Amino acid sequence: MEPAGSGCLGLADVHPPEAGEGAALMRRSERDAAADGRSVGFVLVHAGAGYHSESKAKEYKQVCKKACQKAIEKLQTGALAVDVVAAALIELEDSPFTNAGMGSNLNLSGDIECDASTMDGKSLNFGAVGALRGIKNPILVANKLLSEAQKGKLSAGRIPPCFLVGEGAHKWAVDHGIVSCSPDIMATKFSLSAFRKNRRKLELAEKVETEMIQTKKRREVSENECLTQYGCLSGYKVNWEKSEILPSNVTASLDTVGAVVVDHEGNVAAAVSSGGLAMKHPGRVGQAAVYGCGCWAENTGGHNVYSTAVSTSGCGEHLVRTMLARECSVALQAEDAHQALLETMQKKFVRSPFLASEDSVLGGVIVLRCCSCSLESESSLNREALLVEFLWSHTTESMCVGYMSTQDGKAKTHISRLPPGAVAGQSLAIEGGVCRLQTAAN
Amino acid sequence: MEPAGSGCLGLADVHPPEAGEGAALMRRSERDAAADGRSVGFVLVHAGAGYHSESKAKEYKQVCKKACQKAIEKLQTGALAVDVVAAALIELEDSPFTNAGMGSNLNLSGDIECDASTMDGKSLNFGAVGALRGIKNPILVANKLLSEAQKGKLSAGRIPPCFLVGEGAHKWAVDHGIVSCSPDIMATKFSLSAFRKNRRKLELAEKVETEMIQTKKRREVSENECLTQYGCLSGYKVNWEKSEILPSNVTASLDTVGAVVVDHEGNVAAAVSSGGLAMKHPGRVGQAAVYGCGCWAENTGGHNVYSTAVSTSGCGEHLVRTMLARECSVALQAEDAHQALLETMQKKFVRSPFLASEDSVLGGVIVLRCCSCSLESESSLNREALLVEFLWSHTTESMCVGYMSTQDGKAKTHISRLPPGAVAGQSLAIEGGVCRLQTAAN
Repeated sequence: MEPAGSGCLGLADVHPPEAGEGAALMRRSERDAAADGRSVGFVLVHAGAGYHSESKAKEYKQVCKKACQKAIEKLQTGALAVDVVAAALIELEDSPFTNAGMGSNLNLSGDIECDASTMDGKSLNFGAVGALRGIKNPILVANKLLSEAQKGKLSAGRIPPCFLVGEGAHKWAVDHGIVSCSPDIMATKFSLSAFRKNRRKLELAEKVETEMIQTKKRREVSENECLTQYGCLSGYKVNWEKSEILPSNVTASLDTVGAVVVDHEGNVAAAVSSGGLAMKHPGRVGQAAVYGCGCWAENTGGHNVYSTAVSTSGCGEHLVRTMLARECSVALQAEDAHQALLETMQKKFVRSPFLASEDSVLGGVIVLRCCSCSLESESSLNREALLVEFLWSHTTESMCVGYMSTQDGKAKTHISRLPPGAVAGQSLAIEGGVCRLQTAAN
Repeated sequence: MEPAGSGCLGLADVHPPEAGEGAALMRRSERDAAADGRSVGFVLVHAGAGYHSESKAKEYKQVCKKACQKAIEKLQTGALAVDVVAAALIELEDSPFTNAGMGSNLNLSGDIECDASTMDGKSLNFGAVGALRGIKNPILVANKLLSEAQKGKLSAGRIPPCFLVGEGAHKWAVDHGIVSCSPDIMATKFSLSAFRKNRRKLELAEKVETEMIQTKKRREVSENECLTQYGCLSGYKVNWEKSEILPSNVTASLDTVGAVVVDHEGNVAAAVSSGGLAMKHPGRVGQAAVYGCGCWAENTGGHNVYSTAVSTSGCGEHLVRTMLARECSVALQAEDAHQALLETMQKKFVRSPFLASEDSVLGGVIVLRCCSCSLESESSLNREALLVEFLWSHTTESMCVGYMSTQDGKAKTHISRLPPGAVAGQSLAIEGGVCRLQTAAN
C-alpha cells in the first residue's frame, strides 16, 4: 500500500482461509482534521476484483483517483451520498479500462449489455438495471429508478419499478431524459480485440469438445494416441490427470466497478456497475443488478449500531448465490470490522455451502462502516466526529481501489494483490484503514 | 379451512400485527400412514396472494388441486423435489385464471413478460428468468438453467448463467429445446379485457393529474369548485382529506403462483412464477426472478436443523426489498415454526424498515419445513418418518392454497381470507398444518 499522507491510513494483511480467525489484527491510525461540517465525507471506490496487469496499473489507479476526486467535489457541494456514489460510478464507467459502461466485455453475440445498481442507506431504496444496451452510464438509470421510486406511486396507484431489464429498461431511461448512445461508442479497441480472441478460443474449444465426444463414441483411440492427436494444437492446455485436452479459457475480465460513500449527514450509499463476464450469454444478469448481491447500504438505526455500505466485484454467479453484499453488511455490525469481514469472506464466500461444487470462488468487496463519536482533543473539545472504517478483501489475483476524504488533498490508490504462492479463488487478501472526520462544533 | 380427511391436517389463526407475538398457537394433528418408501413426499402450492373472488373460488381451487395431483404423480415415480416442483408449476402456469404463464397480466405495452425461478435445496442451485416473452411455461426455462448449471462449466471455462432476462433468455430457452409460443396464445379473453379497462383508467388518471397540475398552476380554482368540476366523472374516487380527485386504481392482479415440495429423500425445492403487476413498465422484473426474494430451498445440514422451502406472492417490489423468501427460511430454523413465521411476517414484512414509507404492504408466503424422526407406534416400531410442517401467511385479502401428500387420496384446497374488518396490507392471516410421512422400515 502506498504511504498515506493525509486523514486516512491503511494497512494490509493477507489471510489464506486456513489462517486462524484470530490472526487478523487491524492497526489503526487516525488523524483529526478540522473541516466545514457541510463538506465532510468519505469515498472508497474499486476498479474491480480480477487481474490488473502491472503494465496497466497506472491507468487503473488513475481512474480510481478521478472517481474519488469527482465524489469529493460532489460532497463538498453538500450532495447526499446516493448522488455522490453515482458521480463516482460515472467516472469509473467512462474509463475504457474498466469492465463497466464504456469498454465493457462483449457478450457471445458481440453486444455490450450492462448491469448496475445502487442503494441509499437513508431511505433504503434500491434501483437496478440488467442487460441494458445503448446507455453509456447504466448507473444513471439505476440512480434515476431509485429517485423516481422515492416520489411515491405512479398514476392510478401503480407501484414504481425498482428493477428494469433489457429493451424496457432502455426505453424507460430514454423516457426519463437519459441519452441513448450508439453501441459503437461503448466498444473499445481493447474490448473488440478481446472479443475476437475469445471467439477463436471458443470455436477451438467447441471443436475439441465435439471431436472428443466423437472419439469417445468410437472408443478407438487410446489415451496416449488421443494426446498425440491434439497435443500439437497451439493455445491448448493439457489436463493430464483427466486425459482431456482443453483450449485455454476465455480471458476473464471481472473488473466490475463500484463505490461506497458516507456524506456530511452520516448517510451511506453504495453502487456497482458491470459489463458482465466476457462471452456471457445475451440476457445474462450478474450480481451487479441483483438486490443484496451487488451493493448494500444501511444507515444506523433500529438494531444497527453502524451505518454500513458494501460494493462487490468478481464472478457474478458466485456473488449472487452467496448474497455477499448483504452478508458483509450484516457481519459489519460486529465489534471488530476487520475480523467480521475476514470471517465473512472465509465462511460465507470461499467456503460457502452455496458454492460447495466450485473449485475456485472469485470475488472481492469494498466496505465501509461508520458511527458518530465525540472528539476530545486539546484543540477541539466536545466536537462531533464521524469514525469511518474502510476495508477491501478479494480472492482474485488483484483488486484496484482508491479512497479519499473531504479532508484529504488527493486520493490514495492501491492495487492489492494476493501474496506470491497464494491460490486465487481459494485464498484471500484483506486490507483497510480508519478515518475520523470532524463534523461540527458543539 | 376444509375438513382434512387424510394424512395432513390444518388449522387457522388470524393475527393483526398488534396481537401479542405469543398469541399464536399451532394445534397439531398427525396421522401415521404406511407408504412405499420410494413414493413418499409432500407438496404445497399457491395460486397467489391477492384477491380471489367468491365467484371464481372454484376455478382457483381446481387449479391448485390439479397442480398437487401432478406433483404427487411425479413423486410417486421417484422424481426429485426440484423436478416435482416444476411439474406443479406447469399446471399453475397453464391455468388462464392465474397470473403466470398463460393468462398473465399484460404490461403497459400490451405484452406479456414473465418472471420465474426455482431453487433446489439439495445442490442449492438456482435458476431464474425475468421479463421473458413467448414461452408458455417460464418455469421450464428456470428449471433448465438450474439443471444445466449443475453440469459444470461451459466450453472454454465459462461459468453457466443462473439468471437470464428478455430476448436473451428466450433465445437460450429455444436453443435448449423449449418451444416458443405466439403471444396470442398466452393472452386470454380475461387478461385482454382487464388490459383494456386498465388502459382506460390510466388514461383518465393521467388526464386528471395533468389537469390538476394545470389547475394548481393557475391557482384560480377553489377546493370546492375543483371537486364540483371533477366529481361527476364515473370511475373516480374522491380523497376528501387530501382534496384530490383520483381515478380508481389499476386492478391489482397479484396472483403469482408457487410451490414447495419435499421428496422421498427428504430433499426440498421451491419455485415461483409470475406475470408481474398489471400495467407494469416493459422490462420490469419482480420478486419471482430475484434470488432470495421469490423462492428459497435449503436441505438440512451445517447449521440447519430443518430443511426449509418457501415461495412468495404479492407485490414484487415489497417482496424484493424485504427478501422475504430467504428471511422466512432463516426464521424457520427456530423451534416453533408458526411463531417464527408470524414474527417474520410482522417484523420483517408488514413493519419492515425497508418498507417504512409504504402504507400498505402486500404479500404472502407458503412455507414448509421438515426433519427426520423416529416413528414409534404399536403397529410399526422403529420406523423412520419425515415430519413436515407447512404454513401459509398473507397480508392480502386472500390467498389460495392446495396441499397433498403421497399418502393422501386427494388434494385439499383452501382460500384463506383476512377476517372481516382486518385491513389488507396491515394485518395478516396465518394458517398451517403438520404431516408425518413414513419413509422406510428399519
